[in-house]
Amino acid sequence: MRRVKLKTKDPHIQSLAKLVEGPNPILYQKEDLLAYDCDGFTIHKHLPKAVVFPKNSEEVAKVVQYCSEHDLPFLARGAGTGLSGGAIPVNGEVIISLVRMKRLLRVDLENRQAVVEPGYVNLKLTHSISDKGYYYAPDPSSQYCCTIGGNVAENAGGAHCLKYGVTTNHILGMEVVLPNGEIVDIGQEGVPDAPGYDLLGLLTGSEGTLGIVTKITVRILKNPQEKQTVLAYFDRVVDGSQAVSDIISAGIVPAALEMMDKIAIEGVEAAAFPVGHPKDIEAVLLIEVDGIAAGIDEQIEQILDVCRTRHVREVKVAQSEEERQKWWANRKTGFGAMGAISPDYLVQDGVIPRSKLPTVLEQIGQISETYQLRIANIFHAGDGNLHPLVLFDSRVPGETERALEAGSECLKVCADVGGSITGEHGVGIEKREEMRFVFTEEEIEAQTEIREVFNPSNLLNAGKLFPSPSRCAEVKQELKSV
Amino acid sequence: MRRVKLKTKDPHIQSLAKLVEGPNPILYQKEDLLAYDCDGFTIHKHLPKAVVFPKNSEEVAKVVQYCSEHDLPFLARGAGTGLSGGAIPVNGEVIISLVRMKRLLRVDLENRQAVVEPGYVNLKLTHSISDKGYYYAPDPSSQYCCTIGGNVAENAGGAHCLKYGVTTNHILGMEVVLPNGEIVDIGQEGVPDAPGYDLLGLLTGSEGTLGIVTKITVRILKNPQEKQTVLAYFDRVVDGSQAVSDIISAGIVPAALEMMDKIAIEGVEAAAFPVGHPKDIEAVLLIEVDGIAAGIDEQIEQILDVCRTRHVREVKVAQSEEERQKWWANRKTGFGAMGAISPDYLVQDGVIPRSKLPTVLEQIGQISETYQLRIANIFHAGDGNLHPLVLFDSRVPGETERALEAGSECLKVCADVGGSITGEHGVGIEKREEMRFVFTEEEIEAQTEIREVFNPSNLLNAGKLFPSPSRCAEVKQELKSV
Repeated sequence: MRRVKLKTKDPHIQSLAKLVEGPNPILYQKEDLLAYDCDGFTIHKHLPKAVVFPKNSEEVAKVVQYCSEHDLPFLARGAGTGLSGGAIPVNGEVIISLVRMKRLLRVDLENRQAVVEPGYVNLKLTHSISDKGYYYAPDPSSQYCCTIGGNVAENAGGAHCLKYGVTTNHILGMEVVLPNGEIVDIGQEGVPDAPGYDLLGLLTGSEGTLGIVTKITVRILKNPQEKQTVLAYFDRVVDGSQAVSDIISAGIVPAALEMMDKIAIEGVEAAAFPVGHPKDIEAVLLIEVDGIAAGIDEQIEQILDVCRTRHVREVKVAQSEEERQKWWANRKTGFGAMGAISPDYLVQDGVIPRSKLPTVLEQIGQISETYQLRIANIFHAGDGNLHPLVLFDSRVPGETERALEAGSECLKVCADVGGSITGEHGVGIEKREEMRFVFTEEEIEAQTEIREVFNPSNLLNAGKLFPSPSRCAEVKQELKSV
Repeated sequence: MRRVKLKTKDPHIQSLAKLVEGPNPILYQKEDLLAYDCDGFTIHKHLPKAVVFPKNSEEVAKVVQYCSEHDLPFLARGAGTGLSGGAIPVNGEVIISLVRMKRLLRVDLENRQAVVEPGYVNLKLTHSISDKGYYYAPDPSSQYCCTIGGNVAENAGGAHCLKYGVTTNHILGMEVVLPNGEIVDIGQEGVPDAPGYDLLGLLTGSEGTLGIVTKITVRILKNPQEKQTVLAYFDRVVDGSQAVSDIISAGIVPAALEMMDKIAIEGVEAAAFPVGHPKDIEAVLLIEVDGIAAGIDEQIEQILDVCRTRHVREVKVAQSEEERQKWWANRKTGFGAMGAISPDYLVQDGVIPRSKLPTVLEQIGQISETYQLRIANIFHAGDGNLHPLVLFDSRVPGETERALEAGSECLKVCADVGGSITGEHGVGIEKREEMRFVFTEEEIEAQTEIREVFNPSNLLNAGKLFPSPSRCAEVKQELKSV
């Protein structure tokens, strides 16, 4: 067996290091581990036991087998951009980092497919096929650095999922290492309704609790012939919301239909990509239409008409690709931009029926009043996916807790109007208890039973996605084990 | 307890009858049961023990509870149009017929949703909202009589799923009676990426083996402003196939892109809806484009150009809605039309990568030679979903068996080029063994373990979807129970 020189006598770390070929197979010293104590959800931090860097499926399987046999908790991590804490090692896990599995394995333009490793960065796929006229549709705002493996775990969305669907709609097949170390192929490339149960759908969005994805076949799309993009400024939120509904009602399916409110505008204008939004307006809509060139102008005309009917103050169409890119950079860096107007912020991720937009925004305003914290709203208005950003200062005692409570209240409001507690960021550790807003104990139990099928010892990413068991469920479990 | 007058002393039938209110709660006499001995897959027939007709979820739950407690196998049935035998009572099941649960419960145009009972007929939904400008997209050819509950069980597709996706892409939520009689809500209306595992996706297409769906929330769509439809006749299959690829490569996403071959044309022209296809051509394409009116003409022009480049003999655009409807009736009744040229036929349902179309059609031709049976091809060419129709005469000894073998060979060809054994008809009892063409023993086992979570006693629709266990799996099971 290969020898690796390590500054530790921990036998597990010694053994794990030997399972992975090449230089620097493992990190285990505290100063190195600190970089892995949280992901994009920075409120809870836990140190992992170690971080290993396998370079292929077989190495992942060996590490998983080792952890399983030695009862070591473990989890997979991509770029660590997740926003709900799915990659935080709350049980001192061995982190299996997939960043060295970052190859584009195959592109099949004729059948519109590509095969990537999980550590391949989302936007790189589009870059590597754009000269041939193709792209990969799911576009989370973090796409310049997040990995497709992570996108699969969280079933990531993005600004354009209104028209093109979320990650699950673009995954055609995958190779998965199960928690027992078996390597299996799931789904069938290019088959819209594969035989048997839809395991592909089940794994997608399972937040790393059922297996570790080691290869992914994705659908790629032909670039639309044309795109046109509109900015519309409204003096009243209610007019902006109504315009959103009216555009959809007109039968137009925009590629994207985004909204930002007044506080959000203050943030993005103070940050790296200002575009000169007026600061006294209550809502800006960013609307994009794409497709076959013929017909796009007419759709834009219809959109402008709707905006005028809804008392838009000003509306403009991007005059160049450069201008369009600038508008999108302003929007896509919106979360981070909150750093320009607040020391800390908490992103929430609720979903509501589109028709409830005005009511819910009003209720979020009330929550802001109650908790005495500013809340900005940047969101995918077209599909009712809200992102309230609770601004706070973690240096002020008690303010972090208040922000968390305010965020949770926002989700309660979404759940109460028939919506949901996450649209694209996942549950992770952040929203475990909020699962009770939308699921009964029985429904949660049915889900944990499915986890048991794949992950019977619960060594893989334990403590995520589900609330702590209710006393009732605990009693049931005790009775079972008698 | 209510008394029901029955001509049987079977205590189970007596008891079941009492669980359902109203007249005629149950059928149990042989002459009545004969109508339920098969579904659209008519090759295997089995009599059920009885057929009960609940009128609401609570009655379904009571019947399920009764069956569970008394160890009676049971299954759900809609209109019985399934093509793979999913509703055939191979174990003498109690059939829970859902045809009396046929109400449209709610339409919410603003949020584009409707709630239906499982026995509601697919096409009725479109009819009931079309005057307001909306429709329900999944359109299996049997849509005039098949039920939405059955569509969910089979994850039904249809001619327009190339652009609009299959049933699973249109289901937003459901109420399900689990095999233990519990009633649970699954999924969340209008949430593209609901928290927790994707149970909605898991249940959709599970072929009635995990639970009985008693309420379904579906997405409804705005009618496209315009539709245009093209018929294109090709002297050579290879030109037709290449035109299919070229249209997609041009960046057009047709609403439908259907193909029929020479034998299929012979059938449809001899049946109820002839449209005058030339009988000496090798392939006809039926191509439909829909969407915003502006731009449609240009897309049609592009399609005509592609067809001309690929040596089309003749190409025409429908001149009226009446003509368009006629062309579709010709296509949609295509399976049944085979009855005009053959005493019996077996529909197969394979999927292949679009680029393999010419090769696979050639191989199917060879299978036809080998088995000395004519095979017609009617299919969704745009998404590579083939329907070889094996023509045979069940009165000729051995011909049924030969047809089944030829059908299975066609699926093997699809599987071998990286495709699949079903695109929209399901596995049922018909393709259980063919599951081994695409799944390993381990993969099949993982799926049966999921079935056990929902359906631990396997009383619900047993013997469907999975092959009989291999000897190896049987030994494992025996070892487990020791």
